[in-house]
Amino acid sequence: MADKYEQVLELAKRRGFLWNSFELYGGTAGFFDYGPLGAMLKRRVENIWRDIFVINEGYYEIEAPTIGIEDIFIASGHVGGFSDPLTECQKCHEPFRADHLVKDIVDNPDTMSAEQLTEVIGKNNIKCPECGGRLGDAYEFNLMFKTAIGPGGKRAGYLRPETAQGMFVDFPRLVKFYRDHLPFGATQIGKAYRNEISPRQGVIRLREFTQAEAEIFIDPRDKTHPKFKEVADIVLNLFSQEGQVSGEMKKMTLGEAVKNGIIAHEFLAYCLARTYQFLVRVGVSSEKMRFRQHMKDEMAHYAADCWDAEILSDRFGWVEVVGIADRTDFDLKAHAKQSQKDLSIYVSYDTPKKVEKFVVKPDMGILGPKFKGKAGKVANALKSLTSEQLSGDVIQLTIDGEKIEINKDSVKFETVTEEVHGENIIPHVIEPSFGIDRITYSLLEHSYFEEDAKEKVEDAEEGEEEKRIVLRLPPEVAPVQAAVFPLLSRDELIKPGTEIVDKLRKAGILVAFDDSGTIGRRYRRNDEIGTPYSITIDYQTISDGTVTIRDRDTMKQVRAKVSDIADNIYDMLHKPHHIFE
Amino acid sequence: MADKYEQVLELAKRRGFLWNSFELYGGTAGFFDYGPLGAMLKRRVENIWRDIFVINEGYYEIEAPTIGIEDIFIASGHVGGFSDPLTECQKCHEPFRADHLVKDIVDNPDTMSAEQLTEVIGKNNIKCPECGGRLGDAYEFNLMFKTAIGPGGKRAGYLRPETAQGMFVDFPRLVKFYRDHLPFGATQIGKAYRNEISPRQGVIRLREFTQAEAEIFIDPRDKTHPKFKEVADIVLNLFSQEGQVSGEMKKMTLGEAVKNGIIAHEFLAYCLARTYQFLVRVGVSSEKMRFRQHMKDEMAHYAADCWDAEILSDRFGWVEVVGIADRTDFDLKAHAKQSQKDLSIYVSYDTPKKVEKFVVKPDMGILGPKFKGKAGKVANALKSLTSEQLSGDVIQLTIDGEKIEINKDSVKFETVTEEVHGENIIPHVIEPSFGIDRITYSLLEHSYFEEDAKEKVEDAEEGEEEKRIVLRLPPEVAPVQAAVFPLLSRDELIKPGTEIVDKLRKAGILVAFDDSGTIGRRYRRNDEIGTPYSITIDYQTISDGTVTIRDRDTMKQVRAKVSDIADNIYDMLHKPHHIFE
Repeated sequence: MADKYEQVLELAKRRGFLWNSFELYGGTAGFFDYGPLGAMLKRRVENIWRDIFVINEGYYEIEAPTIGIEDIFIASGHVGGFSDPLTECQKCHEPFRADHLVKDIVDNPDTMSAEQLTEVIGKNNIKCPECGGRLGDAYEFNLMFKTAIGPGGKRAGYLRPETAQGMFVDFPRLVKFYRDHLPFGATQIGKAYRNEISPRQGVIRLREFTQAEAEIFIDPRDKTHPKFKEVADIVLNLFSQEGQVSGEMKKMTLGEAVKNGIIAHEFLAYCLARTYQFLVRVGVSSEKMRFRQHMKDEMAHYAADCWDAEILSDRFGWVEVVGIADRTDFDLKAHAKQSQKDLSIYVSYDTPKKVEKFVVKPDMGILGPKFKGKAGKVANALKSLTSEQLSGDVIQLTIDGEKIEINKDSVKFETVTEEVHGENIIPHVIEPSFGIDRITYSLLEHSYFEEDAKEKVEDAEEGEEEKRIVLRLPPEVAPVQAAVFPLLSRDELIKPGTEIVDKLRKAGILVAFDDSGTIGRRYRRNDEIGTPYSITIDYQTISDGTVTIRDRDTMKQVRAKVSDIADNIYDMLHKPHHIFE
Repeated sequence: MADKYEQVLELAKRRGFLWNSFELYGGTAGFFDYGPLGAMLKRRVENIWRDIFVINEGYYEIEAPTIGIEDIFIASGHVGGFSDPLTECQKCHEPFRADHLVKDIVDNPDTMSAEQLTEVIGKNNIKCPECGGRLGDAYEFNLMFKTAIGPGGKRAGYLRPETAQGMFVDFPRLVKFYRDHLPFGATQIGKAYRNEISPRQGVIRLREFTQAEAEIFIDPRDKTHPKFKEVADIVLNLFSQEGQVSGEMKKMTLGEAVKNGIIAHEFLAYCLARTYQFLVRVGVSSEKMRFRQHMKDEMAHYAADCWDAEILSDRFGWVEVVGIADRTDFDLKAHAKQSQKDLSIYVSYDTPKKVEKFVVKPDMGILGPKFKGKAGKVANALKSLTSEQLSGDVIQLTIDGEKIEINKDSVKFETVTEEVHGENIIPHVIEPSFGIDRITYSLLEHSYFEEDAKEKVEDAEEGEEEKRIVLRLPPEVAPVQAAVFPLLSRDELIKPGTEIVDKLRKAGILVAFDDSGTIGRRYRRNDEIGTPYSITIDYQTISDGTVTIRDRDTMKQVRAKVSDIADNIYDMLHKPHHIFE
């Protein structure tokens, strides 16, 4: 029997959600097209993300190019370290992920070097899975797509492996935009690229994909969140480091999780909460969702804590769809070093601090006449001395290789207490990073249902009589928001039908008009693409100005006035089912 | 004095609309970032485009990858012909567009070959504009960014030079999606790339840019548009082929233009109308817009007609921002040839046609026993003969080099009249193609005003006292839709302020909260980013639950109830100014 992935993909291809890219030319692994319904579904998912993170959290979106210059990816570490181990068959020249070939033989192949993998392959006499040929030495293959900017190939360009770097590179501009106040955040929704060696997991592993990322810059001294109490009672499925050792997932409020030190701090927990709300809102089942903490050896060395949102899929098991990390000051420090620019921000203290400071004051009235051109160097050398070194009657210095003696009267020093109002710090970064394609696929899978048919379809195609396929998409994400059917394909019913279509379209609602086949058949066509509401025009419409509206999920029908139709549908898309209650 | 481009860019950079990309690393020509306000403005422009072409015209959006495989761009002609002539200085190695260097010397440098340009450069002794060095021979430089898909560099990939090809490649899928009915359309909004040799026109010439394109597949026998009468009375500034010869632009209704044969047909004229409405709706001045027809020698050889929407800019003059072409069957034929697939679509006739058909019926009862294994070949050879060739008593054939004679009794032939219900045709393509970045820049320029200040700003910065900078953006595209100001930065005013912010955000409205500086100063800050409405909370708010709302353009203020604020602002964004009337 077909598994759920197969069922969903069959529907997705047939109805225009997902198509293999370049199918006309035989296709290429790792690329998918969003068809007319898929692209609209994806847009709506992106818009809900925008509503939560941009409009409501106030983290403005930016748009940086998808092509980046080399400096950026040297700083980020992608030029040096963004690679997978590759081995190529010496006979058929098919490339393979070396770590995937040994995954049944060794425990953590993803932590092994290319040399170690070559050794394991040799010792275990592993052959090409395609043709049985000998496999070549494994080596690290960089996963960035490379190109050249301008003529001559002099300037390397890379397709960005993540959208995040755009926000880091714009940090100085963002600081000004937010008028020097922490915390602030910037987001980006856009394409990212990963030149996979040999992608074999359909829509789950793409070479070109869409990310939605937020980089939130916070004061490292304060990782609380002002709105944490709004989310503290939300219960999540947590799979902590400890839980993974004991094999136990735990349902827990975010309040408890922070209190018990399971999640490092409020700010991270708050991001988990908004992630959960986003995923549920777009249609991911909360029963098939968990938050898994990175194990210590899995986490980047600089990260303070990191959690993945994972979604259970029928074929692939738990799939990572979101990563939420406290990346500390790693990224900004790396760019500061590579660019030789100061990426700190001045933060004021709530109350000024008293700081003890040791001050050395060389007497230039004595040193000037005595050392002339060298007086400046002498003064600077004195300023770097400690109180012990300055305490003798005669102070000895070496300036340009020459020994110099200075009388204690030529220099005064003291410890003073100064009032300090703030300091320059490198902000820490909280990064929630979303894989929009995986989320879009997951919500399709979680929304896909086959049920016993209850309504009759007289002109049913094979199989349609017994079962109803329905995508129970949240109305807010359904690509087609309403379908309009004249009961019969006659002018007197088509005309009011097209008037309703126009009215709904003017209100920004995406409508499909369908006048072919029986009404039952048309319901089915729209059930399987998730259209939440179907409107039928019949002869009563002409006499009393009402239509029937059918609810996709309950199949209930109500009569409603044509004059209110746009308002009603609009409201129901944002507050589902209300006229059915 | 600074020109308008400079003024707009200064504001755009300072306030976060547009930033040079990779500024941290010194920047690279041809790349711009959209900052927080620019990205939101651009999103809103894209959404209006989507509202017009996807929701209202019903041309569903798709999303194909930005990376394409070589076959696609061989078919499209980009591998062979998407290039500019390049010459490099032999001394400083700076690259130049060869045709740009000779533009004051010859008339149509863009029509010249690389060899011809080399000759002109040599004869006229043109030197490197940077260092005076000798220029090398001109050659054609392909403008696609090239990369490799997967390891080994075996499979070439190109960053798409236009989004259009995605729709053509998906044509077979789209035909099924639209259930085999013409006309239908598909759209795409996304990145496209052009590896310019040496871009020097700021935001006008980008190496990475955003296109919004529609490919509308129509029946070549019928280029009328069912909704043409809705737009026939719209008056446009037309700069026709004839007008360009005589130097005269003409205001004309679209109805007249089609009737007089100036615009080739209704379908194209309809697209001009929707383009005009789109541009005006996003904020382009209709006074600074014209539609210019391509001259015969400028138009692609396959195009039936082509018009550009051009926008007048202060620095660059008339700039092309949209191209609207009837591309006939060129694209589908090219892909059919390259892919060896049938890209035709069956169209039914309104009434069946009677067609005369010559039918040859070999008598297999005679041929079979006589020719045995060769009988089939003989019969096929007979079927390809004409009535004259079949009219003799003996028919002579050559089968596999052997001469064969056949008696006239072995074959019957006749002319029959058949009823034909339809035929397979290659649709024609109408393509409106929009440059979103140029449109976004243009609407900023057209919305930018400096006026004498009327309101007092007590804490004005230099220059603010005398002049007010205001972006008169249509409320629908303004990035920040409302600003909320507590009159004083005190808790009793801040609290109701943040409550209003929450309320507006829950309604999906992008709000800025600002409590620093005088109210006058805060108005100015929002005027120059185009925020249409500013809401002030004062002590009256606490006593009677009202606030003032100020209109950006008229600077009028009204008091309104806090309880209605979300509805009021929402309505005004879509129906500007209504409570001010």
